[in-house]
Amino acid sequence: MIRGSQSIQFEKAPYLISSGSIVGKKEGEGPIGNKFDIVGEDDLFGEETWELAESTMQKQACLLALKKAGVTPKEVRYLYGGDLLRQGVATSMGTEELHIPMFGLYGACSTSGEALALASMAVAGGYGELMLAVTSSHFGSAEKEFRFPLGYANQRPLSAHWTVTGSGAFLVGTRKSHVRITGVTVGKIVDYGLKDSQNMGACMAPAACDTIVQNLKDFGRNEMDYDRIITGDLGYVGQSILFDLVKKRGRDIRNTHMDCGMRIFDQKTQDTHAGGSGCGCAATTLSAYILPKLESGEWRKVLFVPTGALMSTVSFNEGESVPGIAHGIVLEHC
Amino acid sequence: MIRGSQSIQFEKAPYLISSGSIVGKKEGEGPIGNKFDIVGEDDLFGEETWELAESTMQKQACLLALKKAGVTPKEVRYLYGGDLLRQGVATSMGTEELHIPMFGLYGACSTSGEALALASMAVAGGYGELMLAVTSSHFGSAEKEFRFPLGYANQRPLSAHWTVTGSGAFLVGTRKSHVRITGVTVGKIVDYGLKDSQNMGACMAPAACDTIVQNLKDFGRNEMDYDRIITGDLGYVGQSILFDLVKKRGRDIRNTHMDCGMRIFDQKTQDTHAGGSGCGCAATTLSAYILPKLESGEWRKVLFVPTGALMSTVSFNEGESVPGIAHGIVLEHC
Repeated sequence: MIRGSQSIQFEKAPYLISSGSIVGKKEGEGPIGNKFDIVGEDDLFGEETWELAESTMQKQACLLALKKAGVTPKEVRYLYGGDLLRQGVATSMGTEELHIPMFGLYGACSTSGEALALASMAVAGGYGELMLAVTSSHFGSAEKEFRFPLGYANQRPLSAHWTVTGSGAFLVGTRKSHVRITGVTVGKIVDYGLKDSQNMGACMAPAACDTIVQNLKDFGRNEMDYDRIITGDLGYVGQSILFDLVKKRGRDIRNTHMDCGMRIFDQKTQDTHAGGSGCGCAATTLSAYILPKLESGEWRKVLFVPTGALMSTVSFNEGESVPGIAHGIVLEHC
Repeated sequence: MIRGSQSIQFEKAPYLISSGSIVGKKEGEGPIGNKFDIVGEDDLFGEETWELAESTMQKQACLLALKKAGVTPKEVRYLYGGDLLRQGVATSMGTEELHIPMFGLYGACSTSGEALALASMAVAGGYGELMLAVTSSHFGSAEKEFRFPLGYANQRPLSAHWTVTGSGAFLVGTRKSHVRITGVTVGKIVDYGLKDSQNMGACMAPAACDTIVQNLKDFGRNEMDYDRIITGDLGYVGQSILFDLVKKRGRDIRNTHMDCGMRIFDQKTQDTHAGGSGCGCAATTLSAYILPKLESGEWRKVLFVPTGALMSTVSFNEGESVPGIAHGIVLEHC
C-alpha cells in the first residue's frame, strides 16, 4: 500500500528470515566484535587482492544466511547486491558462483537499504518466496578506490571515516521468522553543495534527515514510535548535523538515534576518526547487532536508514559536490 | 505470476507510456540518426566535462519522456537509473534535480533492461502508477573510464566496440499506451572465463544466450513467437557467437535476431569496428527505433535483451575474467 509521497507499507509484510555477517580483524576487535558470524584472521580471506577478498566475503555472507535457513542458492529467486567499487566488481565476482538471477545496485553506503527495499518489494509483490540482499565494503579496496592505495600511508583528517571490512547478507521471504519488513521509504538524492569528500558525515546528514522526516510523515508516526532510528554511517560529525537538521524540521531524535558507524568501532582506542563507513558497515551491524535485538523483542520497531555519499574520484576531482541518499527500512518484531 | 526459474509474467501488464532519446553527433549521422528526439551539435551538450555532458543527457532524456506524457517529475513515484561510470555519477548528477526517490543500478550495458524490469515490477506490484527508467553512456567518459582518455588517441582492435553517446528514458505505468511490458526474465551472471576486455561481444554472448533460451523455456515459447529478439550491444563478433551458442541449445534465432549495436552505426562508413555499445546504445535504439514499430503494430511481440560485460579497470588489470549478464524484457503491441 502506497503511503505518502515516498513510502510503501506492505499488506503482507515479508519476513527477514536469516542473515550472515563476516568482517575483518579490526572489526572483530571492536565493541561488537564477538557478535559477527565470522571474523577474518587477516583482511585477505585467503585471496591475493583486496577486491577478491571483498568478493569472497560477499559469497561467504550469502552462504551463511542461506545455511542458517537451510536454503540452497537454487531456491532463491533473485539476488539484490552491491558494493562501493567501480562497476560493482566485488558483487559480480562474489555472487557469480551462486548462479542466482541478480540485480546489481549502486547506492554508495545506502546500498544495504536499497537492496532490502527491492528484495522486500519483490516478495510482497508476489515475485518469489525467497530473495537475497547483500552488500560489502573493504578498507583496502575502498581506500584504493576513493583515496590512496594503503602503501602510500596517507594521513586522514579527523572528519574522515574508516571503511568497514565486512559483508552482510539477508534472506527475505514469506517463511515466518521473528522480524518483518513492514515498510520502506525510498530516498531522494539530497545535495547541500558540500564538496569535502573527506567529510562524508556532513554530506550524508541532509539525506538522512530527509528520509527520516519523510518516513514519519508518510506513516503518520512520531519519533518515539520507534525504539531506535538507526543510520548507517553518519559518524560523530554527521550525527550532530543530523540532530540539528531534524530539530529544524520540528522533530527530536536524540533519544532514539543510533549510528552503525559509531557502534562498530571504538573511536578512542581504534583510531577510526569520525566512525565506520562503507556498504558493509550498516549491513554487518544490522545482521550481528540489530537483528538479534529485534528477534528477541528487546526492540519492537526500528527504522533502519543506511546513508550513502554519491561521488567518484572523477566527480570530486572535477569539482562536483557530494550529494547524499538514504533509504529507510521499517523492521518490526513479530 | 512466476514463470519458470527466472521469469515473471505480469497479470496486469504495465504500459510503456512514453520515452525520450538524446544522442551525440556521430549517432545522429548513423543509419537511424533521424529518429532520435535530440541530436547534439557536439558531444558536450553545453557542459565542460564528458561526465557532466552525460548527466545532462540523462536529465534531458527524462524530461523528454515526461513531457511527451504530460507528466511532471513530482508525479513519478520512483526512478530506476544507471550508467557505466564508477559509482554511477552520471545518474546521480543527472537525476538529482528531478527530486524523484531513486534506486541506483549497475548492470553494465544491460542496465536499461534491469531498470525496465524493476520499474515494471514496481508498477505491477501496485507500488505506484508512474515509474521512470533511465540509462546513459558517453564515448568520452567511457573511454576515460575503461580504456584511455581520448587525448591519448590509442588504437582499438577490430573486436572493440564504440560506446554510444546517448541516453534513453522510459515512463512505465498504469496509463494506457500501445506497448505493454508483459514479462521479464532476470539474468544470471554467466562467465566463460574470457579475459579480453576489448572483445566484449564474446564476453556477453553466453549471457545473452542464457537469458534468451531461459525466456523461451520459462514462457513455453519458441523463437518464432517473437517478431524480433533484440540484443543490446553484442555487435558483429558477439552475434556470430550467439547464433552458435543458441544453436547448441537447440534453437535458431538467425531470422529473428537484431542487435542495437549493429543497428545504430554503419560499420563501413563510421569506423565503429564491432558495433555500438554502452548503456545508452540499447536504450536510445529502443526509444527511437524499436518502440515506434511496436506502437504502430508493425511488430507485435519483441524480446528486448540488453547485455552487459561486468568488469572494471581494476578487475581486468588484476587478471580477472569478464563475465556477462543479460536481462530480457517482453514488449507487446496492444
